Amino acid sequence: MGKVVAEISLSLDGYVAGPNPTLEKPLGEGGDQLHEWAFRLKSWREPHGLSGGETGLDDELVAENLRANGAVVMGRRMFSGGEGPWEDDANAGGWWGDEPPFHMPVFVVTHHPREPLVRGGTTFTFVTDGVASAIEEARAAAAEKDVLVGGGANAIDQCLEAGWVDELQLHLVPVLLGDGVRLFDGVGLEPPRFELTRVLDSPLVTHLRYRVVK
Amino acid sequence: MGKVVAEISLSLDGYVAGPNPTLEKPLGEGGDQLHEWAFRLKSWREPHGLSGGETGLDDELVAENLRANGAVVMGRRMFSGGEGPWEDDANAGGWWGDEPPFHMPVFVVTHHPREPLVRGGTTFTFVTDGVASAIEEARAAAAEKDVLVGGGANAIDQCLEAGWVDELQLHLVPVLLGDGVRLFDGVGLEPPRFELTRVLDSPLVTHLRYRVVK
Repeated sequence: MGKVVAEISLSLDGYVAGPNPTLEKPLGEGGDQLHEWAFRLKSWREPHGLSGGETGLDDELVAENLRANGAVVMGRRMFSGGEGPWEDDANAGGWWGDEPPFHMPVFVVTHHPREPLVRGGTTFTFVTDGVASAIEEARAAAAEKDVLVGGGANAIDQCLEAGWVDELQLHLVPVLLGDGVRLFDGVGLEPPRFELTRVLDSPLVTHLRYRVVK
Repeated sequence: MGKVVAEISLSLDGYVAGPNPTLEKPLGEGGDQLHEWAFRLKSWREPHGLSGGETGLDDELVAENLRANGAVVMGRRMFSGGEGPWEDDANAGGWWGDEPPFHMPVFVVTHHPREPLVRGGTTFTFVTDGVASAIEEARAAAAEKDVLVGGGANAIDQCLEAGWVDELQLHLVPVLLGDGVRLFDGVGLEPPRFELTRVLDSPLVTHLRYRVVK
């Protein structure tokens, strides 16, 4: 069985999105800066249907993660891009558009029951009975591969708190957002312990990989 | 002229001290975990008057920094160990005791005027007209060497905001404190940009060194 891997880009002051996220700007003010290191990569552009892009260390790391993952778990906001009409619109595909980049089963944790949504090579399944169920369904779908908990902060925090995460990958970006959505908020009274297993650094980002000690 | 270097240990969730700091526990609940990587080192124990200690990568880094620094700037709480009677007691040496580990001039930013205090090889000078003055006095005292802004968060944040910091060194410790004193709180609307210049990792801590882009 594969691992459960939580992976997210983090600012130096601990935010995974800036303040005031909207449908048009789901990462909030300044939040795009957290992903600029990825936007330019071949391995990021390809699944988004874009040609070209940089290769090198960051690119290899993203490609390696994509190969390792067999299913994705995400929160409702990461699917819908914020509070808004889309989440109740059965025709809407969230902010991922008609060709979502995942190309593997995605399990969305939400309170809104909804039929599975197929867009391009990605099927979104909506799980209404909590993160534990989403993880379980994703594990079954991923088989031998890893389950990626891709965000938002809330979904990752819940999984960390419940002890489901085997590995945490932080992409630490040297910017300050000043406000926004924090990772690790409310990870409770008995927080997990982490053991660094790998550091890779490139000019734009430091990739920190931790094993979660259970 | 040397650089102005801000250096501090940071938890994965962005805290430099835990909640409820007191005179007896100036790093707050759980805050000692941020410094455990240092406590065991030869280069940390020696200036604290303790024998023995580990050598290796972490130790070399601490020794390198100690050699580079010619003066220290710190906030009032880092001097006094929290709000309390000591800060108004002209005889008290703060929580650093009779043999403070610095062995170089220390400039304490405070609102309480006070004569310089000599303890062992360390002179504490109390600067009442702001961080800018403390930096200036420390620069003069350090001559060709670096000025260390050693904390707390408040002193570092003020120096970052004012653009006085040339280099930021974070010792990122993979623990979650859940609450406490955050670094970067209130670093304002035009935050500095950082450029990673070195990463060193050891089992207990990741040392991140950033150049502040002016």
